[in-house]
Amino acid sequence: MSGFSASDSAYMAQALRLAARGEYTAHPNPMVGCVLVRDGRLIGEGWHRLAGELHAEANALAAAGDATGATAYVTLEPCAHQGKTAACATALIKAGVAEVVCAMQDPFERVAGSGFAALEKAGIALRVGLMAAEAEKLNAGFLSRVRRGRPFVRVKIAASLDGAIAMQNGQSQWITGAAARADVQRLRARSAAIMTGIGTVLADDPSLNVRDEAIDMAGRQPVRVVIDSALRMPLSSGMLCLPGDTIVYCIDDGGRKALEDAGAAVVKIAGGDSGVDLAAVLDDLGRREINDLLVEAGPGLAGSLLSSDMVDELVIYQAPHIMGSATISMFNTPAWTELADRKSLQFTDVRRVGSDTRITATIKPAIRTTDQD
Amino acid sequence: MSGFSASDSAYMAQALRLAARGEYTAHPNPMVGCVLVRDGRLIGEGWHRLAGELHAEANALAAAGDATGATAYVTLEPCAHQGKTAACATALIKAGVAEVVCAMQDPFERVAGSGFAALEKAGIALRVGLMAAEAEKLNAGFLSRVRRGRPFVRVKIAASLDGAIAMQNGQSQWITGAAARADVQRLRARSAAIMTGIGTVLADDPSLNVRDEAIDMAGRQPVRVVIDSALRMPLSSGMLCLPGDTIVYCIDDGGRKALEDAGAAVVKIAGGDSGVDLAAVLDDLGRREINDLLVEAGPGLAGSLLSSDMVDELVIYQAPHIMGSATISMFNTPAWTELADRKSLQFTDVRRVGSDTRITATIKPAIRTTDQD
Repeated sequence: MSGFSASDSAYMAQALRLAARGEYTAHPNPMVGCVLVRDGRLIGEGWHRLAGELHAEANALAAAGDATGATAYVTLEPCAHQGKTAACATALIKAGVAEVVCAMQDPFERVAGSGFAALEKAGIALRVGLMAAEAEKLNAGFLSRVRRGRPFVRVKIAASLDGAIAMQNGQSQWITGAAARADVQRLRARSAAIMTGIGTVLADDPSLNVRDEAIDMAGRQPVRVVIDSALRMPLSSGMLCLPGDTIVYCIDDGGRKALEDAGAAVVKIAGGDSGVDLAAVLDDLGRREINDLLVEAGPGLAGSLLSSDMVDELVIYQAPHIMGSATISMFNTPAWTELADRKSLQFTDVRRVGSDTRITATIKPAIRTTDQD
Repeated sequence: MSGFSASDSAYMAQALRLAARGEYTAHPNPMVGCVLVRDGRLIGEGWHRLAGELHAEANALAAAGDATGATAYVTLEPCAHQGKTAACATALIKAGVAEVVCAMQDPFERVAGSGFAALEKAGIALRVGLMAAEAEKLNAGFLSRVRRGRPFVRVKIAASLDGAIAMQNGQSQWITGAAARADVQRLRARSAAIMTGIGTVLADDPSLNVRDEAIDMAGRQPVRVVIDSALRMPLSSGMLCLPGDTIVYCIDDGGRKALEDAGAAVVKIAGGDSGVDLAAVLDDLGRREINDLLVEAGPGLAGSLLSSDMVDELVIYQAPHIMGSATISMFNTPAWTELADRKSLQFTDVRRVGSDTRITATIKPAIRTTDQD
C-alpha cells in the first residue's frame, strides 16, 4: 500500500460526492460512488441509487465504455459476490482496470476483504484507506448495522435556547422555524425508520413521514416505529393511514389483532428496566435491515436511549427563545449526581438554519463498557 | 446629504476597526475612530484610547500633519464642547478639512447635533449615516447609557447542550473548556462592570476579574457588582481583596460599616417584587457611567432580569454535554404558561469556541411597553 497524491484525494472526494447522491434511496445498501480516471482524465463516474439497480462501479464502467488501464476510485470495497447484480470486483477485472483506490473495506460478511483479494489475485494494483474517515461517516448507518447488528441512532430534538421542548402544559407546536422544519424533512428522508413513543402519538398524533415532494425517495417512506409497552396505540392514529409501514413494539400485545387490521405490524418484545427493552428493539430493527434510525420522541424515550448509551448522534435545533422555568426538558434521565455522570458529546457541526441554530453532536463512548465492537 | 461610494464604505470600515481598538479602555467614553483621506490617499488615522487622552479626530489630525482639504471619516459625531480635551469639531475646522463623513450623531446631550452644526456653519461639507448600524452596535453600551440612563445588559451563561448550568448539588466547575473561558476574559474586559448575586458569591466566591495579562485594560478592572438584599456578603469574599471596586446593592444595610471597611461600596436601594429593585440598580449604575454591564449570575438573578425585560443580549456558551434531569437550569422565571409568554431572541452570532459553541442573541423587545426610547 503506497501513499496518496492530491489528485487521488480530489478523485476520491468526487466519488464520495457521487455516493452521497444515494442518501435518500440506496438503503438498505450502502451509498457508494466510483470514478474512473485514465491519463489524468476522468472517463466515467457512477453511484448506487437503489437496491436491485446497478452498483456504482458498474455504472461508472458503463459510462466509460472502455476502461482498459484506468484507475478506479471507489468509496467502499467492491463486492465479490453475485448478489442482485453481478460482482463489482469481477466487473472491474473484466474491464481491464489497472488500479483500484478504495476508501475502506466493506465489513459486510459476504465482502469483508474478498473483493480486495479478487482484485489482487487478478494482478490489479490496490491502495486502500484514502479518506476512510469520510467514507465511514457517509455510511455510518450501514456500517453500524453490519458491525453491531443495530441501526445508527440519531436523536432529533427541537428546543428553545434554554433547553425546553415544550411548556409544562405541552404547548410546543412550531418551536422552530420553517427552514428548520424543512431540514427535518431531509433528516427523515435520510432515515430508514423514524421512532417515537406512545406518549407522543397520544399527544400529537404525528405523521412521521416525508412530505417534501422535492425529495426523491424512489417512492419509499421511512418505516414508522412506535414504542408502546401496553399497546395503547389508537386505531385511528394518522400514521396508520399513510403510505409506508408502521411497527409497534409492545410487551403486552392484548388487542394486537385490531391494530394489525388497522395496518400496523405489532411486535411483542421483552420488557426492560422501564418498559420495552430498547436494546432488543434496536436488534430487531437491525434484522429488518434498518441502517439509520431517527428518533423524534419526548423526553422519556429520548432520555431512556441516552441513559443506556444507545444514542450515536444528536441533532438539536435550537429556537431563538427562552421558555423559562415551567417547561419540559429534552431528556428524562436518572438523577445523575456528579458531573462525571453526564454524557459527553463532540460537536461535529454547528450552523444557523433560518432563524434557528442546528447543533450536531456525536456521543463520546462512555468509559464503562459499551457493546460497540 | 448625498449617497456614499464604495471607497467611502471602505474608509468608514477602517475607522470602525480603529474605534474598536478602544474596546477595553475607552470606557466611559464611546469608542471612536477617524480616518483622513485626501486625493484618494489615507493621510492619517486615529482612535480614542482612554478618557483624558486625545480623541480619535485629534489623533488622526496629528498623524496627518497637514490635513487641509481632506475628507474625515468619523464613526461618531465630533464633539463641539471643550471637555477634558479640545473640541474635535473645532480641531477639524482649524485643520481645514473639506468634508466630514460621519456614521451617526452622538446622542450625548453636550454633543447631540452641535458638532454637526459647528462643521456646517464653518462651511464644511457633511454626510451622515454611513454604516450607522455598525457604529450603533460598536457603542451599544455608551448609547444605552446616554439614551436610557442604564448600561447595556449582557448576560453570560455557561450551560450544557440541554440547558443545565449545574448538577442539582451545585457541581458546575469547568462546564466549558479553556477556549471558552479565555473568551469570557475578553467579555469581561469589554465590560465596565460585572454583576452577580449573593448566592453565587456564597457558593463560589468568584473573583469576577480579568486575569488574562495579554488584555491591555490600561490598569482598569471591571467594577464588581453584587446584588445582596440582606447584606450577607462575607467580609472574607475574595473579590474584596482584588484591585478594582466592588459595589454591593442591598435593601437592609445592617452591617454596612464592616463591609465598607473590608473594601466594598455599599448602596442601599429600594426593594422590588422580590429583593433589590433591579431597575433602580441599573439606573444607579448608569449614573456611575457604567456603559456595559456583564451579568454572570445564577438562575435567580438571571431569571429576574430576563423576566423584567432588562436583558439586552445573551451570550451562551454551550458545552458538549448532556447533564440530564437533576440539574439547575439557566433562568428561574415565573411559570410562563403559554408559548406566547416566552422571550423571543434573535441569534446574532453562532460559532464554535474550542470544543464549545457560543451563541449570541439579542432579546426582541416585548410587545408590552418597554422603557427604551
